[in-house]
Amino acid sequence: MNTQHNEQATLGKAMRRALELAAQSPLYGENPQVGAVLINDDGEIVAEGWHKGAGTPHAEIDALKNLAAKGLSAANLTAVVTLEPCNHTGKTGPCSQALIEAGVKKVVFGTYDPGKTEGGGRFTLEEAGIEVVSDVLRDECLQLIAPWFTNKFKHRPYVVIKWAASIDGRTAAVDGTSKWITGAEAREDVHARRAASQAILVGTNTVELDDPELTARKSDGSLYETQPLRVIVGERDLNAGARVFNRDSETIHYKTHDLSAVLTQLYERGIRQVFVEGGAQIESALISQDFSDEFLIYLAPKLIGGPATAIRDIQVASIDQAIDLEFIETKKLGADMLIRAVNKEK
Amino acid sequence: MNTQHNEQATLGKAMRRALELAAQSPLYGENPQVGAVLINDDGEIVAEGWHKGAGTPHAEIDALKNLAAKGLSAANLTAVVTLEPCNHTGKTGPCSQALIEAGVKKVVFGTYDPGKTEGGGRFTLEEAGIEVVSDVLRDECLQLIAPWFTNKFKHRPYVVIKWAASIDGRTAAVDGTSKWITGAEAREDVHARRAASQAILVGTNTVELDDPELTARKSDGSLYETQPLRVIVGERDLNAGARVFNRDSETIHYKTHDLSAVLTQLYERGIRQVFVEGGAQIESALISQDFSDEFLIYLAPKLIGGPATAIRDIQVASIDQAIDLEFIETKKLGADMLIRAVNKEK
Repeated sequence: MNTQHNEQATLGKAMRRALELAAQSPLYGENPQVGAVLINDDGEIVAEGWHKGAGTPHAEIDALKNLAAKGLSAANLTAVVTLEPCNHTGKTGPCSQALIEAGVKKVVFGTYDPGKTEGGGRFTLEEAGIEVVSDVLRDECLQLIAPWFTNKFKHRPYVVIKWAASIDGRTAAVDGTSKWITGAEAREDVHARRAASQAILVGTNTVELDDPELTARKSDGSLYETQPLRVIVGERDLNAGARVFNRDSETIHYKTHDLSAVLTQLYERGIRQVFVEGGAQIESALISQDFSDEFLIYLAPKLIGGPATAIRDIQVASIDQAIDLEFIETKKLGADMLIRAVNKEK
Repeated sequence: MNTQHNEQATLGKAMRRALELAAQSPLYGENPQVGAVLINDDGEIVAEGWHKGAGTPHAEIDALKNLAAKGLSAANLTAVVTLEPCNHTGKTGPCSQALIEAGVKKVVFGTYDPGKTEGGGRFTLEEAGIEVVSDVLRDECLQLIAPWFTNKFKHRPYVVIKWAASIDGRTAAVDGTSKWITGAEAREDVHARRAASQAILVGTNTVELDDPELTARKSDGSLYETQPLRVIVGERDLNAGARVFNRDSETIHYKTHDLSAVLTQLYERGIRQVFVEGGAQIESALISQDFSDEFLIYLAPKLIGGPATAIRDIQVASIDQAIDLEFIETKKLGADMLIRAVNKEK
């Protein structure tokens, strides 16, 4: 690590690996997803760890254990962790103390716990004479814990709003036809995200108009092994023969327009993340009632025009009141594009 | 060039350079923009050329001249040209013959002239025993000549439609406020593109609602050296005190809704490219009447909702009739995103 530039690149690379490891942590657990690596002065990764769920060691401790299992010492190593090491004794001991005892010379972390006004372990580490570096790949590390943070502080599921539209923001033509705006790659991506979701939520309108199955299917048409809970919201009675009531997964119909109550009930059922797939009315309501956390927008290289906009009125009277998002990812999917954004007003 | 993979990479790199050179050709000339490089067996560029305007040598000939000026021979070199070498004798001789006489061993080109059903120089070259490779970076090479192609075969300017919208496709809030949806970087990009445009076109509505100057200004507020012609279309009389009539550039008001007539008149004035900056009504009309060639869509990470969509009705009754575009570029501009697309129905 000769120059500052080299060190930044080295820490960035190590943090990317820590983020990859973190992604293996339970998605909807009591604790956030966290990953950690231990690197030497040449930037080489000597040990890795991640948090495997409540009651098991935190990521830093997991990495230290894996290091010890190799018969190696942490002296002169740098710990690179996605989240600031904790300072409290919960089901496991405080990580900052463990890092001090292991003898690491430096601790690098991605983000503070946004729920705390004061740093956690950072001060303990610094008092012990350990160099601390923060905010390495901060945005990515913060995004990683966003679902957990929503759960913990808002006591509701993390709400991901999805729509597929033409580049002018339409989800259907004048006559209501919408199959298909996006191509096969985009639709496969949606199914993979359904499979990784705990619940899919739609309004009664969507069930009546599109009669979707809302299952997660592979490109060969077969079902993914895990299927999300299907949630329908709206006061109208639905035809019991609608495909959403088939046996491929469980379905709940909340006959209400009270979105807050629906989200609370889902949370009480253990649902930590909801994938909202339309239609415009329920998505607009979730947005205007501040129940939207993340957006997955599939844009097709098409122009449609007309009345079928993805989002309707969301109570933005003047440009100053526009809802601020942040683009966090764009990806080409066949001829289409996926734009991921998060709500900045958290 | 040991392996096929290496050769592809080498030709791709050479073609990228040819594309850069082509960009120096006159944008709105009688001939298309074309660039050429001569490379040796190691893929090194030995000479470069581009077309400098009607009556001057074509790009290949320019490269051969530059080679000769260095006292070098073309024997055993490969010519890499963005457009298929021509076969006809116009103001200059046929390029394919010149390449044969120069003794190049191979000719690589990006795209055929889309206006010709038969290849141009390719057959002449092959008959002379020269290896010919086509379609290297074809899409980029085709896009380069799209404006010229529209001019030549449609006898109208190349029409670039621009809008700046929230990610849900709105250009203003319910009360009509729209300043600013996009940030400084996106607005600077718009001004640079205005400066590079021959004409800006808007509807009378936009003049009345926004009172824009439609000049090309640098970030310090000063005017670019060249200013586009300002074109207003619509039957309404306008206030002579509107800012668009200031002395910073010339302004024409066509008091008609006949877009075909306006484009023809602009073409007859020598205008080869028009940058359309709104509003929704005139852009929707240009799209539905098949007068749109390219789209520059600035998307802000915002949600606005409500009635002010960038595009209104464009006569797409059913999803099958959606207008097919192709995304050719996406770029982050500060917090915003620029998406470039071209109309595929050419």
